[in-house]
Amino acid sequence: MVAMKDKLSTDSYKGVRDFYPEEQYIQDYIFFVWEHTLESFGYEKYNASVLEPTELYRAKSGEEIVNEQTYQFIDRGDREVTLRPEMTPTVARLVAKRRRDLTLPVRWYSIPNLFRYERPQRGRLREHWQLNADMFGSTSIEADVEMIELAATILKNFGLNDTQYEIRINDLQALQQTLSEAGLNDIEAHQYRKLLDKKDKMSDFDEQAERLLGRPFTLTLAPSEAIETVIAKLHQRRIANVRFVPSLVRGFDYYTGLVFEVFSTDPTNNRSLFGGGRYDNLTSLFDDTPMPAVGFGMGDVTTRDVLETYNLLPPYKPTTAVSLCVLNDAFYDLAAELAQELRLEGLNVSLDVSGKKIGEQITKANKRGVPFIIAIGDDEAASDTFVVKHMATGVEKKCKRRKIAAFVKKATTR
Amino acid sequence: MVAMKDKLSTDSYKGVRDFYPEEQYIQDYIFFVWEHTLESFGYEKYNASVLEPTELYRAKSGEEIVNEQTYQFIDRGDREVTLRPEMTPTVARLVAKRRRDLTLPVRWYSIPNLFRYERPQRGRLREHWQLNADMFGSTSIEADVEMIELAATILKNFGLNDTQYEIRINDLQALQQTLSEAGLNDIEAHQYRKLLDKKDKMSDFDEQAERLLGRPFTLTLAPSEAIETVIAKLHQRRIANVRFVPSLVRGFDYYTGLVFEVFSTDPTNNRSLFGGGRYDNLTSLFDDTPMPAVGFGMGDVTTRDVLETYNLLPPYKPTTAVSLCVLNDAFYDLAAELAQELRLEGLNVSLDVSGKKIGEQITKANKRGVPFIIAIGDDEAASDTFVVKHMATGVEKKCKRRKIAAFVKKATTR
Repeated sequence: MVAMKDKLSTDSYKGVRDFYPEEQYIQDYIFFVWEHTLESFGYEKYNASVLEPTELYRAKSGEEIVNEQTYQFIDRGDREVTLRPEMTPTVARLVAKRRRDLTLPVRWYSIPNLFRYERPQRGRLREHWQLNADMFGSTSIEADVEMIELAATILKNFGLNDTQYEIRINDLQALQQTLSEAGLNDIEAHQYRKLLDKKDKMSDFDEQAERLLGRPFTLTLAPSEAIETVIAKLHQRRIANVRFVPSLVRGFDYYTGLVFEVFSTDPTNNRSLFGGGRYDNLTSLFDDTPMPAVGFGMGDVTTRDVLETYNLLPPYKPTTAVSLCVLNDAFYDLAAELAQELRLEGLNVSLDVSGKKIGEQITKANKRGVPFIIAIGDDEAASDTFVVKHMATGVEKKCKRRKIAAFVKKATTR
Repeated sequence: MVAMKDKLSTDSYKGVRDFYPEEQYIQDYIFFVWEHTLESFGYEKYNASVLEPTELYRAKSGEEIVNEQTYQFIDRGDREVTLRPEMTPTVARLVAKRRRDLTLPVRWYSIPNLFRYERPQRGRLREHWQLNADMFGSTSIEADVEMIELAATILKNFGLNDTQYEIRINDLQALQQTLSEAGLNDIEAHQYRKLLDKKDKMSDFDEQAERLLGRPFTLTLAPSEAIETVIAKLHQRRIANVRFVPSLVRGFDYYTGLVFEVFSTDPTNNRSLFGGGRYDNLTSLFDDTPMPAVGFGMGDVTTRDVLETYNLLPPYKPTTAVSLCVLNDAFYDLAAELAQELRLEGLNVSLDVSGKKIGEQITKANKRGVPFIIAIGDDEAASDTFVVKHMATGVEKKCKRRKIAAFVKKATTR
């Protein structure tokens, strides 16, 4: 016998998750709501590899971020490769590559896994999945409004009501203009914007702003015409929990127009959930032809957290609708035949191949949460009639073989 | 203006694929058939990260394979990390970790992306996706039969008939016993098995075998009792295109019992599609408790190829069912309201925000293949009545607002 110290650990790599069926069930539910909602707005799915040339990120983010927060390595052909930390550079690459063939505007979404090298903590793992929704090729304010409507519809489809979250919006173009009119030069404006991004975490924002600019400065920003239009249009679409917040700038430098961010209003978990905005310099890494874009990203970890907070996660249910249990080996062929028939009628059917006693087979199926059980022995084989037991109600229904599927479907929808 | 030489290439990393909506549509179709079929047999989905500790592969495959065919690197915490080249070590890790909590046997599936560092060529990219279907915890021959039935059902659900492929099976335990009885020691038997694996590509197999063993040796193998049972049971389940092939050994050393491999019978593309078998040493890397397993893997690239060969790929259809076109900006709010209503009735609806002339909007929607178009202008706003145009038939139907969804659904199912 090999000593235990020669055996490998069963732990995953640090900071990533294993998805056993119970966890995958939640993941699939979140992905399903994302896909369903995005497709209901006419968005189409795209994807790409998690591996990208490193230059894609170096160009945009500057050396520092590439070196410290991304997974990168050199491949055997001396290529620099990165595990994508975000999807936007990838989708910009795809759009730039086929820009001549695309009938603009296009609506696209993807649910990529993204990697960041950082200390694992709540909501900030090394790998997470993120819905990316974008519209390319439209400068219309209708595109900005649609993004926010889409975000609100996703939350509605997850079961949130509009008192449970708030949408904050700002107009970065108007902000930029105000700062410029107040006499801030480009560098000062950039730094002031960076400071604004951290405003909520500061008690001494005004002093810090004064120190930065060398003079007192208080931002007084009325909502721009664009902001007023967006809010009015969202009200018309029955989205009222939206508020102009002039200090909202989002963390990225690439936003160029309207931005929004969705916050939970739950007092125990009152935090930013996700956000996005307009970024009209999308494809400038690849060519000089303008490509307006508006979009947002929404992560699986944050989504799961907020659904947990509001008790909106669906209870786990196994795939199987019917478990077929057999008295002994002689009944496997009949059971397999019946399974085939029920599958053709759209039911998910598993066959117990454990060889255990029939009582144990039934106990096991019940423990797994399989809703219907059929035991197969001599009587069933002789009469071609089966007893279908609905575990939730205890109802046992004697069915001719051809009637089983109809009974199960009816009992399920009831 | 920045010179073009400063711009990045829009190419993906070498040997991986971009999935534009048209390609993703095919990918989603393949994944859907896999998921649907697996769940109809009661299999549940699991997943894990593409990143795994390198030791997981080194232990099993030996240094050579780890060094030359896998993507591996050292992370910033000095951990050796590998991009998974196959899913079996990962699922073995998951099963070993929770073996006490699992009610065996369990049926699991996953559709991971896998990485291999190799020269890109037809069907052998650096990244591909692979269905992995496994049953853990059963030594019953019913489990072996189910795996082959599952494989055949997947192909049937893709639209293949049973003259288009053939299932070859062999019994590696019986083969091992025959070789042992013929006087081959363990090393000779291992080498002979390796030679057998390449038999189809050799013209001089018998001479090579003689050179290997130092004496003439011809394998005469009758089907084992297990093989005969499996074939009989598959016939009973209406799977007749199955054949005993004593030279079938599969490429991996870990198979311990029955193995199978599915071959296309198309003369222009007559090749191995996928396969699997029994591997009862699954969790021995992690502990000494036996864990019988039977399973198979099926790749997306090969699957797409065979569906193309047999002309079974579905034609691309856009997500959108209805495109709403507006006469001018004044009608966006009405269009958005109508879109909201139609989405609640289950239709995928997109709103044209291009600001182009209405004729151009209709042309564009038609070019995209959107099946229904509604143009919104003064008459529609005043009368609350809309003309729905079904592009495939040219039929134009005047509908009251509340009747639109019903008309579209009826015209779609016809």
